[in-house]
Amino acid sequence: MASGYRAPMDRDDALRRLAGARAGHLATADRGSLPHVVPVVFVVAGETVYWAVDRKPKRTRDLKRLRNIEANPNVQLVADHYEEDWSRLWWVRITGHARTVEDEDEADRALDALAEKYPQYRADPPSGPVVAIDITRVVAWDSS
Amino acid sequence: MASGYRAPMDRDDALRRLAGARAGHLATADRGSLPHVVPVVFVVAGETVYWAVDRKPKRTRDLKRLRNIEANPNVQLVADHYEEDWSRLWWVRITGHARTVEDEDEADRALDALAEKYPQYRADPPSGPVVAIDITRVVAWDSS
Repeated sequence: MASGYRAPMDRDDALRRLAGARAGHLATADRGSLPHVVPVVFVVAGETVYWAVDRKPKRTRDLKRLRNIEANPNVQLVADHYEEDWSRLWWVRITGHARTVEDEDEADRALDALAEKYPQYRADPPSGPVVAIDITRVVAWDSS
Repeated sequence: MASGYRAPMDRDDALRRLAGARAGHLATADRGSLPHVVPVVFVVAGETVYWAVDRKPKRTRDLKRLRNIEANPNVQLVADHYEEDWSRLWWVRITGHARTVEDEDEADRALDALAEKYPQYRADPPSGPVVAIDITRVVAWDSS
């Protein structure tokens, strides 16, 4: 679906729509070009997307997205709307470079924004690392 | 979210849940380890996932997922459920090898299954290539 035609969407509109989405899908790849995809919750702050790992990973297998990012910062994140009326589909996809946030102030701001957007995080804040995606490209599509 | 704990789910249950999902997210990567993610509609037939390109792509940029698969058949597809009650989240993710379906009988069976699952395709069948993902691994998670 939604592959052949791309209606134009203003970049700011696209980023606003991305910011309003409740969940997205993050694709990473290791250096061997093995892609990995996970659902994530996230916030948009200016030209950066932030998400956090819920719990401190205990096993290497839980860390695939983080290991991929360390080896290869290239990522994509898509937020989209699905419904059975295919004339009302849309998606916004960003391409960017991911980095684990080392700066404590930046991490705190991201966690505050995540808790603001997601009440679920207020009772149970994510205890794993915060990851930033610095956006390099925005592509959006709307079927209507 | 949903990163630190993985509740077990039977492989057959996972594939049934995948088959019932209305949409999924496909991750591919080119040989330079640039990941790409798109929403897709799909069917599951045994150990294979099928999806189709809606319209014959006219421009190279529309073909990114197909060009990636040609260069690198490694893909992942995830189907998941999001709701604001985070105790009810789940996802099923398959890893596999993608191939453009050349066999006409196989393509016809896949298109029939897609039209069976998606009434939207009955009025407007996809005219682009059918792609198969031969499943090599299934991982599932349920927060409940």
